[in-house]
Amino acid sequence: MILALTGGTGGAKLVQGLAAEIDPADLTVICNTADDAIFHGLHVSPDIDTIVYALAGLNDEEKGWGLAGESFVALEQLRRLGEEVWFNLGDRDLATHILRTDLLRQGVPLSDVTQRIRTALDVKSEILPMSDDRVETRIVTAGGELAFQEYFVRERWAPEVKRVFFAGIDESKPAPRVVQAIGNAAGIVICPSNPVTSIGPILAVPGIRQALREARGKIVGVSPIIARSAISGPAHTLMTVNDLEPSVNGVAKGYADLLDVLMIDREDQYLQNDIKKLGVEPFSANIRMNSLADKQRLARQVLALL
Amino acid sequence: MILALTGGTGGAKLVQGLAAEIDPADLTVICNTADDAIFHGLHVSPDIDTIVYALAGLNDEEKGWGLAGESFVALEQLRRLGEEVWFNLGDRDLATHILRTDLLRQGVPLSDVTQRIRTALDVKSEILPMSDDRVETRIVTAGGELAFQEYFVRERWAPEVKRVFFAGIDESKPAPRVVQAIGNAAGIVICPSNPVTSIGPILAVPGIRQALREARGKIVGVSPIIARSAISGPAHTLMTVNDLEPSVNGVAKGYADLLDVLMIDREDQYLQNDIKKLGVEPFSANIRMNSLADKQRLARQVLALL
Repeated sequence: MILALTGGTGGAKLVQGLAAEIDPADLTVICNTADDAIFHGLHVSPDIDTIVYALAGLNDEEKGWGLAGESFVALEQLRRLGEEVWFNLGDRDLATHILRTDLLRQGVPLSDVTQRIRTALDVKSEILPMSDDRVETRIVTAGGELAFQEYFVRERWAPEVKRVFFAGIDESKPAPRVVQAIGNAAGIVICPSNPVTSIGPILAVPGIRQALREARGKIVGVSPIIARSAISGPAHTLMTVNDLEPSVNGVAKGYADLLDVLMIDREDQYLQNDIKKLGVEPFSANIRMNSLADKQRLARQVLALL
Repeated sequence: MILALTGGTGGAKLVQGLAAEIDPADLTVICNTADDAIFHGLHVSPDIDTIVYALAGLNDEEKGWGLAGESFVALEQLRRLGEEVWFNLGDRDLATHILRTDLLRQGVPLSDVTQRIRTALDVKSEILPMSDDRVETRIVTAGGELAFQEYFVRERWAPEVKRVFFAGIDESKPAPRVVQAIGNAAGIVICPSNPVTSIGPILAVPGIRQALREARGKIVGVSPIIARSAISGPAHTLMTVNDLEPSVNGVAKGYADLLDVLMIDREDQYLQNDIKKLGVEPFSANIRMNSLADKQRLARQVLALL
């Protein structure tokens, strides 16, 4: 079994590639849930949904979020009813959030909700939330504290960030099967997701980082940074806030205790020796993924390294 | 101010007629909420919504329920996710239920939720739930107990009914402004809705029936029964269960302590003397409403009697 740790967009591309290269039933994915948010009373798990939709082949490749061919009738009506609707929730997507909210309120844990949804959508890979407990990424900006989605979607990551923390993380436990999956994995991939707000929370759930350190499988990371800038999103900015250089060096430093290999882009090849000094083996390749062929090629390279 | 007591479909037609004949701001409507139900964790108030949508001009005239031009994308996805979806919830309609559920969970009373929704949709008439407390119509059938919507929508009122009761009614209180509206009304209309499951629960909320008996305004009822059969739905069946003859006589008997006048159809004119014996003044007219013109004509006749 191959295990992937991931956030949303960037990670989803590699996860798609992996699921295309091996039997998807042999892939397990641990998702960040610290970006989860409540909109209009509905529990939204953006990273889980991005992964499930991508593996179900339902995702919108062009937009990079949500479902292909989505309509927004309910959201328009919520706007008319006076709701703030800056977070885009499509009609088909809403069904996921309505069902999840209903089941969570009935006491069903998020991991079981996720299994029900991915099974209904014929996703063969196991998708695990990092935790069944509520953890919330909080972004402390010059203008006050924001939830992650407020910072990322509503404010388009414009505010200056002072600090990032994960509310509830100390009391959180890994979801069932997470530690076991880490222990059993033949190889582990840390996807090219934001090291601070996507992979960071997963590693900060008490017990997960230690389980990874003790894992028998090799651990390969793929850098979300090329040439000192995130492939998408604010990873470079947030890394600086967390005293990590916004570069492949910073990525290597953040994961140094875990990684056997870090895949970096050819553009960053000149930094290989710095990475080696951190005890991580660099491997340079073209790590941009624009097409399914790119995703599969990168997945093949990752699998070869494992 | 004119006050109307109503359920959904049939009553909505007369309410539309009334709002077209007087200043809609001078119309107050008290709605049955004992048909309210939870679907997929969302609180649905079918009668309130039917009235609000009708007065907002958004209702589907042909189907007699829901919104015109509605899509059902979210519901189809809920079905795919394994949910039972026998209650039709359109995408636009869902926005109402999502907002209502969110506000109720925050502790906002149903009457305030209703006011927010009808105001957002530019409905000038005040729409009041009979109560802010949860009351639930239960239908005891030969095969077991059903919620009203299970009996009415899912089972298409096929099961044999043994008994009808309103769970929670004894502990319920009239919603704010209900008793005051009854006292202040210049005239009161009991709409052609099901006497047992639509008007019945309103009258059974402790205090409402007594307030109507003491009302200074005249009370005019419009029969939902023509020629021993309901204009729509199972009113005649349910009246029999409640020991009311399924006829205009049964309607008159059920409301005898309240009504000054009962409007009946010309077809039932031959029963006028029976109605008079119950102390109610019969008034015969064409009470079927197929067009807006019909609704307005009937509303004018009702207003003249008040």
